[in-house]
Amino acid sequence: MPQPTLVSFHAGISGQWALTSVRAMRGTTLEPAERLTIVEGREIPTRSLWTLRGVVSNSRYTTRAEADALAAIQPSLGRIEATRAAFIPIKKSSGWWALAQDERRAIYEERSRHTSIGLTYLPRIARRLHHCRELGEPFDFLTWFEFAPQNEGAFEELLAKLRASEEWWYVEREVDIRLARP
Amino acid sequence: MPQPTLVSFHAGISGQWALTSVRAMRGTTLEPAERLTIVEGREIPTRSLWTLRGVVSNSRYTTRAEADALAAIQPSLGRIEATRAAFIPIKKSSGWWALAQDERRAIYEERSRHTSIGLTYLPRIARRLHHCRELGEPFDFLTWFEFAPQNEGAFEELLAKLRASEEWWYVEREVDIRLARP
Repeated sequence: MPQPTLVSFHAGISGQWALTSVRAMRGTTLEPAERLTIVEGREIPTRSLWTLRGVVSNSRYTTRAEADALAAIQPSLGRIEATRAAFIPIKKSSGWWALAQDERRAIYEERSRHTSIGLTYLPRIARRLHHCRELGEPFDFLTWFEFAPQNEGAFEELLAKLRASEEWWYVEREVDIRLARP
Repeated sequence: MPQPTLVSFHAGISGQWALTSVRAMRGTTLEPAERLTIVEGREIPTRSLWTLRGVVSNSRYTTRAEADALAAIQPSLGRIEATRAAFIPIKKSSGWWALAQDERRAIYEERSRHTSIGLTYLPRIARRLHHCRELGEPFDFLTWFEFAPQNEGAFEELLAKLRASEEWWYVEREVDIRLARP
């Protein structure tokens, strides 16, 4: 496991990924932009319409059995055929964060089946989670997904299942940004 | 539960707390200084010999039953009689962070009794944990303890028990800084 890696998402007029839609699911939206640049590692001051930052870090709810099941089939980012992406910043409520670890875990997996649902969509969808609750950012998490165009339907189905779960009762802000690259 | 709060610990020549000792338990030490200033909230550029930052955030291992047991007897910081303090920055190994949540929890509590041991020293010792693994800081946690002079022996006993636990096999850097105020 490497050191935690800071990742900055700069929305503006340059970048490999073109934004195709920006949709607020809950709470206020983010300003639409033309393109997104993703910078890993040390922060570099960049002109942007908006920038969100998060850290790739250790998992918080995943058991060893779940981690091994995920590791066996999860694809890496950057697959040549994965020309569609989704960038979904989420903020959970203070009620969520006031829960104890066992209560959050029970909602996350035993009742909402977050990992179990996600597993059934692998290896079609690649995912990377970035933590930002401790960074003073407007969101708690930034999730980045990559998939081939023919798997967009499967991705919508995955999102619909998660959004219908008990875990999502605690989501107070969510923006769904879709992107494409050549 | 309030928003996560950034706390900065500035070591230098000013501050309410006088440093009485700086001792590296594992790994490299921190430079001795005369005094420590603790700033809560937004960062203010401050001249210091060294500054460490962390965020008061949600707990990661504590169950509801444990959280309730702690809440019932844990004292707050700033008690008039608590004129002694310890500031203990800790960095855990990459091996720790590569463990899954259930593995870390089992070491933390079921095998090392971190919370159970701590509970037996309450309400004599006040404690606040600051997370900094995601901030790009040299440590993963900063723990701040406050107690009355007559409870210093109890505090040493608490530390000795934790340092003898399996959890401490994963500590790769630890500095033990003691402080006093009038």
